Amino acid sequence: MKYPETKPPVFTLTAGPVDAYPEVLRALGTTVLYDYDPAFQAFFEDLTLKAQEAMGCDLPPLILQGEPVLALEGAAASLIARDDVVLNLASGVYGKGFGYWAARYARKVEEIEVPYDTAIDPEQVRAFLKAHPEVRIVCVCHHDTPSGTLNDIDAIGAIVAEAGALLLVDAVSSWGGMPTSPTASQAGIYVTGPNKCLGCPPSLSLVAVSQAAWEKIEANPDAPFASMLSLKDWKNAWKKTEPFPFTPSVAELNGLSAALDRYLDEGPEEVWARHALTARICREGIKGMGIELWPVSEDIASPTATAVKMPDGIDAGVVLREARARYGVSMSAGRAETLGKLIRIGHMGPTAQPGYALLAVSAMGGALKALGAKVDVAAGLAAAQATWDAAIDA
Amino acid sequence: MKYPETKPPVFTLTAGPVDAYPEVLRALGTTVLYDYDPAFQAFFEDLTLKAQEAMGCDLPPLILQGEPVLALEGAAASLIARDDVVLNLASGVYGKGFGYWAARYARKVEEIEVPYDTAIDPEQVRAFLKAHPEVRIVCVCHHDTPSGTLNDIDAIGAIVAEAGALLLVDAVSSWGGMPTSPTASQAGIYVTGPNKCLGCPPSLSLVAVSQAAWEKIEANPDAPFASMLSLKDWKNAWKKTEPFPFTPSVAELNGLSAALDRYLDEGPEEVWARHALTARICREGIKGMGIELWPVSEDIASPTATAVKMPDGIDAGVVLREARARYGVSMSAGRAETLGKLIRIGHMGPTAQPGYALLAVSAMGGALKALGAKVDVAAGLAAAQATWDAAIDA
Amino acid sequence: MKYPETKPPVFTLTAGPVDAYPEVLRALGTTVLYDYDPAFQAFFEDLTLKAQEAMGCDLPPLILQGEPVLALEGAAASLIARDDVVLNLASGVYGKGFGYWAARYARKVEEIEVPYDTAIDPEQVRAFLKAHPEVRIVCVCHHDTPSGTLNDIDAIGAIVAEAGALLLVDAVSSWGGMPTSPTASQAGIYVTGPNKCLGCPPSLSLVAVSQAAWEKIEANPDAPFASMLSLKDWKNAWKKTEPFPFTPSVAELNGLSAALDRYLDEGPEEVWARHALTARICREGIKGMGIELWPVSEDIASPTATAVKMPDGIDAGVVLREARARYGVSMSAGRAETLGKLIRIGHMGPTAQPGYALLAVSAMGGALKALGAKVDVAAGLAAAQATWDAAIDA
Amino acid sequence: MKYPETKPPVFTLTAGPVDAYPEVLRALGTTVLYDYDPAFQAFFEDLTLKAQEAMGCDLPPLILQGEPVLALEGAAASLIARDDVVLNLASGVYGKGFGYWAARYARKVEEIEVPYDTAIDPEQVRAFLKAHPEVRIVCVCHHDTPSGTLNDIDAIGAIVAEAGALLLVDAVSSWGGMPTSPTASQAGIYVTGPNKCLGCPPSLSLVAVSQAAWEKIEANPDAPFASMLSLKDWKNAWKKTEPFPFTPSVAELNGLSAALDRYLDEGPEEVWARHALTARICREGIKGMGIELWPVSEDIASPTATAVKMPDGIDAGVVLREARARYGVSMSAGRAETLGKLIRIGHMGPTAQPGYALLAVSAMGGALKALGAKVDVAAGLAAAQATWDAAIDA
Repeated sequence: MKYPETKPPVFTLTAGPVDAYPEVLRALGTTVLYDYDPAFQAFFEDLTLKAQEAMGCDLPPLILQGEPVLALEGAAASLIARDDVVLNLASGVYGKGFGYWAARYARKVEEIEVPYDTAIDPEQVRAFLKAHPEVRIVCVCHHDTPSGTLNDIDAIGAIVAEAGALLLVDAVSSWGGMPTSPTASQAGIYVTGPNKCLGCPPSLSLVAVSQAAWEKIEANPDAPFASMLSLKDWKNAWKKTEPFPFTPSVAELNGLSAALDRYLDEGPEEVWARHALTARICREGIKGMGIELWPVSEDIASPTATAVKMPDGIDAGVVLREARARYGVSMSAGRAETLGKLIRIGHMGPTAQPGYALLAVSAMGGALKALGAKVDVAAGLAAAQATWDAAIDA
Repeated sequence: MKYPETKPPVFTLTAGPVDAYPEVLRALGTTVLYDYDPAFQAFFEDLTLKAQEAMGCDLPPLILQGEPVLALEGAAASLIARDDVVLNLASGVYGKGFGYWAARYARKVEEIEVPYDTAIDPEQVRAFLKAHPEVRIVCVCHHDTPSGTLNDIDAIGAIVAEAGALLLVDAVSSWGGMPTSPTASQAGIYVTGPNKCLGCPPSLSLVAVSQAAWEKIEANPDAPFASMLSLKDWKNAWKKTEPFPFTPSVAELNGLSAALDRYLDEGPEEVWARHALTARICREGIKGMGIELWPVSEDIASPTATAVKMPDGIDAGVVLREARARYGVSMSAGRAETLGKLIRIGHMGPTAQPGYALLAVSAMGGALKALGAKVDVAAGLAAAQATWDAAIDA
Repeated sequence: MKYPETKPPVFTLTAGPVDAYPEVLRALGTTVLYDYDPAFQAFFEDLTLKAQEAMGCDLPPLILQGEPVLALEGAAASLIARDDVVLNLASGVYGKGFGYWAARYARKVEEIEVPYDTAIDPEQVRAFLKAHPEVRIVCVCHHDTPSGTLNDIDAIGAIVAEAGALLLVDAVSSWGGMPTSPTASQAGIYVTGPNKCLGCPPSLSLVAVSQAAWEKIEANPDAPFASMLSLKDWKNAWKKTEPFPFTPSVAELNGLSAALDRYLDEGPEEVWARHALTARICREGIKGMGIELWPVSEDIASPTATAVKMPDGIDAGVVLREARARYGVSMSAGRAETLGKLIRIGHMGPTAQPGYALLAVSAMGGALKALGAKVDVAAGLAAAQATWDAAIDA
Repeated sequence: MKYPETKPPVFTLTAGPVDAYPEVLRALGTTVLYDYDPAFQAFFEDLTLKAQEAMGCDLPPLILQGEPVLALEGAAASLIARDDVVLNLASGVYGKGFGYWAARYARKVEEIEVPYDTAIDPEQVRAFLKAHPEVRIVCVCHHDTPSGTLNDIDAIGAIVAEAGALLLVDAVSSWGGMPTSPTASQAGIYVTGPNKCLGCPPSLSLVAVSQAAWEKIEANPDAPFASMLSLKDWKNAWKKTEPFPFTPSVAELNGLSAALDRYLDEGPEEVWARHALTARICREGIKGMGIELWPVSEDIASPTATAVKMPDGIDAGVVLREARARYGVSMSAGRAETLGKLIRIGHMGPTAQPGYALLAVSAMGGALKALGAKVDVAAGLAAAQATWDAAIDA
């Protein structure tokens, strides 16, 4: 029995999109209201304040009407003025990619780049900023998803703050799945999305903008307005008395509301704990069957996705197809530089459950074995189970 | 008994967003697939081809991941090169607004502007193009929603084609509710959205781009790429073998698929017929109670929204609140220049049903009467009913 | 344009099933839990207590796993012992029908029957009970739906209580749409269903059983047990520590929970008020166009359904088909003795909104007119609108 | 981390109710139609014919408005006349239980009872019928769910047919998950339900009645009519021109329609194959960790549920709670005689996927181990994985 590519897989254990929580899927089908209806405008204000509570930011966050790529491009366009010198921190494909957007708007983009299985050393940032006091903005990706690695944005944020620069954080695939927040990282702009750990479908962004960042945006004559890329347009739109720049994605906002309720109701710490545990079980299972993780150290492995290094001579794409065909499990390939070299198992929202780690180990191991890799699937499953049990009994 | 503003209205008869069809609302809750899962990629290809069938365009249309404001801004940015002279046709707030986008990208924007209760005269366009052979692009809004008026884009399109220029059409709130298509209007770019007459929530755009327009875009060195505003990025994304520029809005695409199925299954001509009939009944009801329509002539009144002129001394906003409080009916205000002066009753998708025209007449008339306007609600209802009956018996 | 029979109508304004509230429809799709899962057992206990709050009964009501016909048959089988003399009150098809069930179990069934456009006179019941002290059980239908008429169950209940007998009430299509309760009617057994005024799909029953009725049931050696018809089997099933007699209808219970939340959140008095107002508008509209109501007096017309008498020579079935074909409005025929003679317009749950009364008048009037009846539809609409306005301004 | 009892489990791997297929959950929320609306009556006819296609029966099956307990009680009441001698075959709690219903209606109930971890020997039936030619009806449970064991109903059916008696089959938890049908078993009445292998919520029954059985029912003066327990009432209700005996469960029927579409679309043989494979993997996993299955032989183990024998001194209830608390996995207890002695893992509908077998082995093994049982969970997981791999590679 093999699972055909023409039908949905049984388990989507990707690094996103993942399936949405059932509550969210149902909420998407709520009666669509007119955006200027007073009930909708009040809903949007309440929703924004609920998002603020969940994100723990000082000002109401922006809810932008596109997946976080919109928010990141918009943030670059809004924050970076033509005279700015930007320091881009690149420890992976997404961090690197942000530099290209930054370069569109900045006078100059400096970059600290490290191998994509490692993380940025905050001390290197400190040294760089000391040597380059002209840097106004520092950009960093928290969880560089195509590598499954984390940067220490809170440490970096403290250094950036000390240097009087503004930090722009991409926390798309970390926020909601681990302890991280705009304030802890002292971010000027902190971009995340409900389509990863919050368990919504992709379509919206959440953007926390600090007072200082708003001032910089408002002082930037090139900051987009009357544009899809504008942050400014949305600054006051959360207030029920203010108009929307354009029609918001009503159904997705209904879904977001259900997701935030769920997050706050389960309790952020409980949510983070099951993401962390699922990732730990997954890593132990992978290592237990004799396969290496992609990150050089588990200290920088994200609790929201596990990147698995492919054994020499084995192409990740072939493994993915095999795992899907044999076990009905869909996982994520790498991107760009990491494409073909690794496979990512997501632990996000509804899939951040230990049981799914077991299934991922089974599918990854079974596919590798079927392709001739030296792998002890049974040992992997045993390690995963033992890790789970140890955590339960702790 | 009055309906409170804190709760949803009973009937949303706005010019959009309107409520989605029930099939669409349910489809939004479909299991979210990973965008690179082969089943999803095949789905997206099928969906694009289904959209092509519905739109009747020569090439697969783009499905963009934002409501049509994104598509219009992206179209302007992509099509209009820095040396271009653009002719913008403005018969309303939306047509006028497009000119501002055009001005960002063009060398020069010429404009034919007419009063916002009238339509562009195609012969004036012909004369202008003859006098200004340097015009490369002509922009027009088909149904200028804030006025409820139609421009004759097929006639204009023929003239533009003859002049060797490219036509950019905003058919957001007309397509799917009346006979109109990219080919009939000979449009270079034809933008619409599933969130009006197709009965989806707002979040996506459909964009037909002609071969000639693609050539112009590709020759434009400033056309956005690697950007939310890019059309180019999405050109080949419909093919199941090609990557997505960024994560598509999976849930909304599931909704779109259901909406297209419904549209094709009911039959476009049947759909258009009920939009037209609903609008006609509504107009007769409004006139029947002694209130004027906004358009100077019914010949240019859209079958997808009826704009009602407020009697002297009566503010549209007050009427809207009164209608909602008294009858639970939510309708749309004007925008910008038309704000306060008119009210719009939408006939779009699920609300394009004669019964809703009757309710709109009841609510509009009742609210006006309660505010002291001279209005014969009973006569309006009688006229609406008589129009309906005559159509049934025809 | 006519609406085909092969497709759903646009408006379902029947006396039930009506469409469910949107919240309920969404709740039906909640993840199905195992009935013995502790989370489900706790949910069922909470649900029962919420139903008790809504019904205002002294003991937790039974939630039976079938539409109210099950509950009524089960109530007859459980309560009526083979030596019992039962008085059945028949003012309509449903009341009459209950007598047949009663006759299966009772030693003797006495009956007070009145014409089906009138109501039972409580004084007649008093006199009968005085003359027949052997009567142990009195059965009455509150809202005899096929006639759209109400019996005064509170007055009857007081008389029955005084006589020391037990009252069995069918309040299926009245409860939740008007002020009525098990305690106000002093009912021994009070049967209702969530599929009428509560806005759920048909599939469940709610049954309030008094302490005295439980004692009678338990003393009845023929009361069903280990049977679908049993009330006893379910007596303690609401407790989270107790087993279910058989598998409950999990999805429907999820829907019921949402419906009860909605009912309690909107406020029962507000719910009743809009049922009453809708019915009043509908009746004035019907009369206003020159058509008679079925009940001999409006004092006994139910606020949850309006029964309209067909003019001489006009068959109700033909009118129903015509109304559906012309206006997309589905209404209810009569049943048995009232079949062909009347049409019923429901005002239940989501359709208990004045706007729907207007549409019903339009469709009923238009269909009658098309069939040659002497009817002034415009006058009917005017009367409905005027009634609505008067109520708003009151 | 433990999973609280107050929240739903993560994985429901019970012997039913299981979660419904996502398509079914969405279909439950379809607009509720009036049961006498012509579109609904046509839908019900189509649905019945689709159920007939799926069940492969000669006559349109009955769709009864209650879970299969209703159908079984109704079948007993309808088929068994007061002079009948019935042979009840009891190999488990459900088979035994049916005898109590049979005894309510029959002159005499004979019984062949075997230990509840074994199956009925068809030859014993043959011998009994030969010795008791007065037996008119034989009753058998195909999959006696509380034991996870199968009886060979096709062999028994052939013997019963030969003897000129009628077979009444309870195939509730087998049909749709394995090759079985009314015709293959030559059943007079064959009862199943969509709430097991078809992946619907519990609320409906499907009943195939043969021509001979209808004749017997119609000749039975005690067969219920005008009753919830009646089969006769529903005989012709499937025809779009015929009335319903009472209001059908519209939402559940919408769900059933989606489930049948899914079943026929996936292909019954493919559906059965994944049930069989899941069960096999589960059994190998259980045995592999050193735990015994409940059935004396795997030849009689159902592909739709795996019954696991608890080690001496270990109470099943405690294991269930432990598995749920530790792993978020909900499984089923035994019933009556098997309660406490075994645990059942369902493989039904959406949970008939090998991945869930792995999770069941993990949870069952982990819980047993935590409670001190001698169990090698790792070996169980290894065996399950190996079995899965062998099947894939076969």
